[in-house]
Amino acid sequence: MVKKVVGLEEARRRLEGEWRPSPRVEEVGIWEAAGRVLAEEARCGVDLPPFDRALYDGYAVKAEDTFGAEEAAPVPLERLGEVEAGEWPSVGVRKGGCVRVATGAPLPPGADAVVMKEHAVEEGRTVRIYRPVSPGENVWRRGAERRRGETLLLPGVVLSSREVGALSAAGVGRVKVYARPRVGVMATGDELEEPGRRLGRGKVFNSNGPMLCAAVASCGCQPVWLGVARDRPGELVRKIRRGLSEGEALLVSGGSSEGERDLVPSAVAGMGRLLFHGLALKPGKPTFFALVGNKPVFGLPGYPLSALLVFHLLVEPYLRRMSGLPGPPTLSLRARLLEGTEKARGREELIPVRLRLEGGELRAEVVRRGSGAITSLLEADGYLRVPREKERLAEGEEVEVFLFGG
Amino acid sequence: MVKKVVGLEEARRRLEGEWRPSPRVEEVGIWEAAGRVLAEEARCGVDLPPFDRALYDGYAVKAEDTFGAEEAAPVPLERLGEVEAGEWPSVGVRKGGCVRVATGAPLPPGADAVVMKEHAVEEGRTVRIYRPVSPGENVWRRGAERRRGETLLLPGVVLSSREVGALSAAGVGRVKVYARPRVGVMATGDELEEPGRRLGRGKVFNSNGPMLCAAVASCGCQPVWLGVARDRPGELVRKIRRGLSEGEALLVSGGSSEGERDLVPSAVAGMGRLLFHGLALKPGKPTFFALVGNKPVFGLPGYPLSALLVFHLLVEPYLRRMSGLPGPPTLSLRARLLEGTEKARGREELIPVRLRLEGGELRAEVVRRGSGAITSLLEADGYLRVPREKERLAEGEEVEVFLFGG
Repeated sequence: MVKKVVGLEEARRRLEGEWRPSPRVEEVGIWEAAGRVLAEEARCGVDLPPFDRALYDGYAVKAEDTFGAEEAAPVPLERLGEVEAGEWPSVGVRKGGCVRVATGAPLPPGADAVVMKEHAVEEGRTVRIYRPVSPGENVWRRGAERRRGETLLLPGVVLSSREVGALSAAGVGRVKVYARPRVGVMATGDELEEPGRRLGRGKVFNSNGPMLCAAVASCGCQPVWLGVARDRPGELVRKIRRGLSEGEALLVSGGSSEGERDLVPSAVAGMGRLLFHGLALKPGKPTFFALVGNKPVFGLPGYPLSALLVFHLLVEPYLRRMSGLPGPPTLSLRARLLEGTEKARGREELIPVRLRLEGGELRAEVVRRGSGAITSLLEADGYLRVPREKERLAEGEEVEVFLFGG
Repeated sequence: MVKKVVGLEEARRRLEGEWRPSPRVEEVGIWEAAGRVLAEEARCGVDLPPFDRALYDGYAVKAEDTFGAEEAAPVPLERLGEVEAGEWPSVGVRKGGCVRVATGAPLPPGADAVVMKEHAVEEGRTVRIYRPVSPGENVWRRGAERRRGETLLLPGVVLSSREVGALSAAGVGRVKVYARPRVGVMATGDELEEPGRRLGRGKVFNSNGPMLCAAVASCGCQPVWLGVARDRPGELVRKIRRGLSEGEALLVSGGSSEGERDLVPSAVAGMGRLLFHGLALKPGKPTFFALVGNKPVFGLPGYPLSALLVFHLLVEPYLRRMSGLPGPPTLSLRARLLEGTEKARGREELIPVRLRLEGGELRAEVVRRGSGAITSLLEADGYLRVPREKERLAEGEEVEVFLFGG
């Protein structure tokens, strides 16, 4: 098979030229909305507050009736009734009268202020007011916060407890959010054994399966684990078809390097269009991308470290777009390299590093990076992207460290 | 009822003096482990790699047989067999011989290096080697990365795709993680109506329910919504009992201010011990904390903005400890106040602010902060904590802004 080796930028261009991730929309109840991404403009369903409300326990009054009240000369008002929170007033306030109100209760008609109960004393049907209030005092006017129909939130917001609270207060019981796309994940290789089982001779544990499913979930997608495909063309094709029918995209790890058993790209090429095969990137060479009936198939290297780095650079941004999430935050910081290191010739190289503070200065230390290494992921805080032209990095050189996210 | 009003620090001291959140441990499969918090030291179950492996497709050889090989003078070796990944070698390598190996295949006995297939040509049973290799070249030695029994991860780590990958590779099929505690959430008030329903006269929407459930979930807990309790003592006591039997902690919002209907703290005091009632904090005065049979009951204000701010300061840290998560990151930054503002006398005040960049300088702008306001949460990026003694903040004053998290 003729390989189409490309650099990272060209790989992205080909993907984006041929395929546009389009998030689907679904409706969920506000109780299930936390963590989801809003897909519509959300508007206020009611005036906020929906009616004039008492801000405190006290007495609804005509403010002018209280002018001149003081400790030594309280103003007596007639108590005409009371309103609890959740009730609707059955009586109004007329000159010389007042109505007892609870915090949050609607203000009775005729009243324009509330005297806090700390500043009044009730004796029978008479309430003595010891402090004046001005019109509007201790009242929360209908619509003072928001008007019905006003925009609350724009699409694209990730809903946290704050947004859920505001939408609920505004009466929004259901919201349109981006659906969590199902994404198939499969691994290939006769050598793979399930973690937790006894390891047969010549076997290694399937680490890409659980790892890539976790990575897919962190992009707001639902991973669908298809299992390990043995290295037989028929089984590969069946699993790929199943993955594409059950999911909106498919990740396949392993089986795409140059060896005789590299059956996956061939199988996929027979089902759709291979847009590139081979990335001018270390690690990450045996990466491919194909479209089968407009669904993307991402072929990732079999080595776990390679698979995860390629996932971050070339898959995560697109899965996030499919689920409506904002692009992954690129957090990077500058540090000085602790020790010089060689790099691969003729290819961009990703080099995992650990950060440490030494004498108040941030230092980047290269961690073990053999192709097969996986536990180096535990030691690394991020990675360097060293351009193709460069041949080595010098001790003390300033480098940009791209931090791993969650 | 005698109130025991305390400041924020004293409130924390009382909580921590009487109650120690203790996370429970459960075991989950590695496929379900992403996002969970590791509760044990995880060790490598096998040597990594578990056997000497070929790093590339090629030929397993005795390195010394290849010394002196060059383009013009290839060294011929006899092909004695082959090993695929996942197989166990049935043949060894003797002097003058080689075995074809696939990437990841075990190295046959007798071999100590691999010649990449690009540097060899096969003709019948003869393989011509065009480049020398040194002992160990292209071989990934058993245990080179980690030894069986070596520590991989310490307790307290939040498991991301990287950790899940490394644990899987090490054969760890199940891990002990901290359980997600169930936390009951209830709201009180005759005025509360479910979001999405038609709003009756005098009613407002229940925003604290969905908001606090979302906040509880963001602390790694499982919220258990108990519904709205009407303001009747019997109903309150029943719901509180149910909450405490179903969950390991309980949040109650509303019904704890000074009004006549403030039945919740009384109900709780009758069931257990009230440790404080009333916080010298604005907003947040009607906050209480109680222990009922060693389970904590957090009483939060009914106003949503107040409830959420108190949740962040006084509940979130403890719920996170219950679920084994590290304390919430306190992210704060310094900004200059856009406009001066008064503050409450005699109480610490939390003032929500929005950040904006003006002329290259970070400015903090106070957002509407009426007790009832909730949509101000959408505008605010964080809040100020203004100490009790302070009476006003001046325009241009440097302030510390505590950022809201997720």
